[in-house]
Amino acid sequence: MLVSDLLNIRYLTGFTGSNAALLVHAADTAADETRTVFCTDGRYETQAAAQVPELEHLIDRASVAELARRAESRSATYRRVGFESQHVTVDGLDELSRTAPGVELVRAPGLVETLRLIKDESEIEALRMACAAADRALAGLIEHGGLRPGRTELAVARELESRMLDHGAAGPSFETIVATGANSAVPHHRPTDAELAPGDFVKMDFGALVDGYHSDMTRTVVLGRPADWQREIYELVATAQAAGRDAIRLGTEVADADTAARDVITEAGYGERFSHGLGHGVGLEIHEAPALSQRGAGTIEAGMAVTAEPGVYLPGRGGVRIEDTLVARADTPELLTLTTKEFVIL
Amino acid sequence: MLVSDLLNIRYLTGFTGSNAALLVHAADTAADETRTVFCTDGRYETQAAAQVPELEHLIDRASVAELARRAESRSATYRRVGFESQHVTVDGLDELSRTAPGVELVRAPGLVETLRLIKDESEIEALRMACAAADRALAGLIEHGGLRPGRTELAVARELESRMLDHGAAGPSFETIVATGANSAVPHHRPTDAELAPGDFVKMDFGALVDGYHSDMTRTVVLGRPADWQREIYELVATAQAAGRDAIRLGTEVADADTAARDVITEAGYGERFSHGLGHGVGLEIHEAPALSQRGAGTIEAGMAVTAEPGVYLPGRGGVRIEDTLVARADTPELLTLTTKEFVIL
Repeated sequence: MLVSDLLNIRYLTGFTGSNAALLVHAADTAADETRTVFCTDGRYETQAAAQVPELEHLIDRASVAELARRAESRSATYRRVGFESQHVTVDGLDELSRTAPGVELVRAPGLVETLRLIKDESEIEALRMACAAADRALAGLIEHGGLRPGRTELAVARELESRMLDHGAAGPSFETIVATGANSAVPHHRPTDAELAPGDFVKMDFGALVDGYHSDMTRTVVLGRPADWQREIYELVATAQAAGRDAIRLGTEVADADTAARDVITEAGYGERFSHGLGHGVGLEIHEAPALSQRGAGTIEAGMAVTAEPGVYLPGRGGVRIEDTLVARADTPELLTLTTKEFVIL
Repeated sequence: MLVSDLLNIRYLTGFTGSNAALLVHAADTAADETRTVFCTDGRYETQAAAQVPELEHLIDRASVAELARRAESRSATYRRVGFESQHVTVDGLDELSRTAPGVELVRAPGLVETLRLIKDESEIEALRMACAAADRALAGLIEHGGLRPGRTELAVARELESRMLDHGAAGPSFETIVATGANSAVPHHRPTDAELAPGDFVKMDFGALVDGYHSDMTRTVVLGRPADWQREIYELVATAQAAGRDAIRLGTEVADADTAARDVITEAGYGERFSHGLGHGVGLEIHEAPALSQRGAGTIEAGMAVTAEPGVYLPGRGGVRIEDTLVARADTPELLTLTTKEFVIL
């Protein structure tokens, strides 16, 4: 199998550079393991020696082509080679075919992604640290009065990001969302110069990157005395989110987990205002399988890391989303984002 | 032509969302322009109306598939449709073929990228602002004593990034490199807890993102009295960099621009220590065409935005890189990064 996707290579080998390829040999015996070959370019020679000590290395800027040449030159060993047809481009396959005409190239989409669905304990530990960095950043922000009328969405977003770095993040895991007042009704609002004002919902969707793993969390608070409609939709979303979390059980269809949260919102008459899925997998990517939505397929398995993030958005008024990152476990899911989901009134 | 690459769609339409496709009709008459159709999903309906007001919109999460269905349903208009074979995956093409069996799908790699090679004045203005944000960040860092023994590489990197945000950047244009002492000999060092020490070279490679355009610049300073070898390689790299900039003339082969800088370093006996190309194009991507290297093909044309960044790296001791972003013009290139290239001794 010729693995060319960098995240898949990182997953299999631990290599974190920006150029690499991996030719995996399905070994029957330990001796055959040496037939798995790793390739990167000269910039990463030292790094590759440290991160991938157990494999034979080739050094070439065109790493995929170099491994195709290797397969071609030893086509008795590499008669049939799978490639990641969901990542390799049409032009890329042409080049592979030209480089290795004696090798049978076989579509093999999603094999490594399937492995990545189930996180092992070291991956979960990285996710736990990423979630902790985000939790601590939000706690510090609130404790130091960072959420107050007159501050801009951008200033709040920057402070959250800076605090995540203070708590060990390599960076934010995606572009931080801070949305105040009517902006909170926009599911994916980009922070602007808009100022926080008394009575506003402030919705913050953010995460930290630790050891390549992404956390994802949303909290919505209100500045000053909430209006009745704000209490109503906050409680509704919190109830739906609890139902969604509770449905993340081994063997549950992912679409049914979405339904569990969605039914709560639909029954309250806001079904149209919950315009996205319950959640998604997180790991080396901020969005990865499984999709917890009506379109999603498959069941929850132990070790899947997912978000639960229902929302209700009232255009022109405001919206609430509450999101956690969790890991499916034998009994109840393990919650990785620990910030309170009580209605926080500042 | 079915355009599926998001940066190419942004270039053609101005749309900045994370999901879209564009079916461009090669119109003979103004009336035919309405046959160009844009598709995105429900999250971006409002944004698309504002950013792409002139085109017909379809709304579908599977935007490429939706436009393939459009082509199939009007195959008299869309008999032959080009696709971006350098971006579309093998599985993606399968899906296109299944969705639009009545349409002839034609490989059309790199068409939009060819347009993107030459920047217009509005793009150059965005690059200018991105370069100015980086220049100002470095000036502020130095002015406020940010480069001093005992600070860590990570702290310096964070301050540079924070100051770029203060000067209007949406973010860093890539992961900021700060490398002190022997680390400066690693071309793409990631900042660590290593502390700046007296006598160190401090190499900083960083840039800002403004309106989607990336700046790229490197400066190397020394803390305290430089050693003779430091003066020697600094002056050598500065001379090579000036030669490289000077070679960025209309009609020059890109490989010859690389040679102009490389010859200076090779003649001084350090050819082996300049282990990368002279530079690369910058724009909506931090690395784009043309490659200014021995492997690069083509000539410099007016409006190309490129970097000139020779370096000399002495393993275990230290290294120097000096990099500007410039635009090829009719006479001499326009320099966008304006920080001094004199040897700065702090």
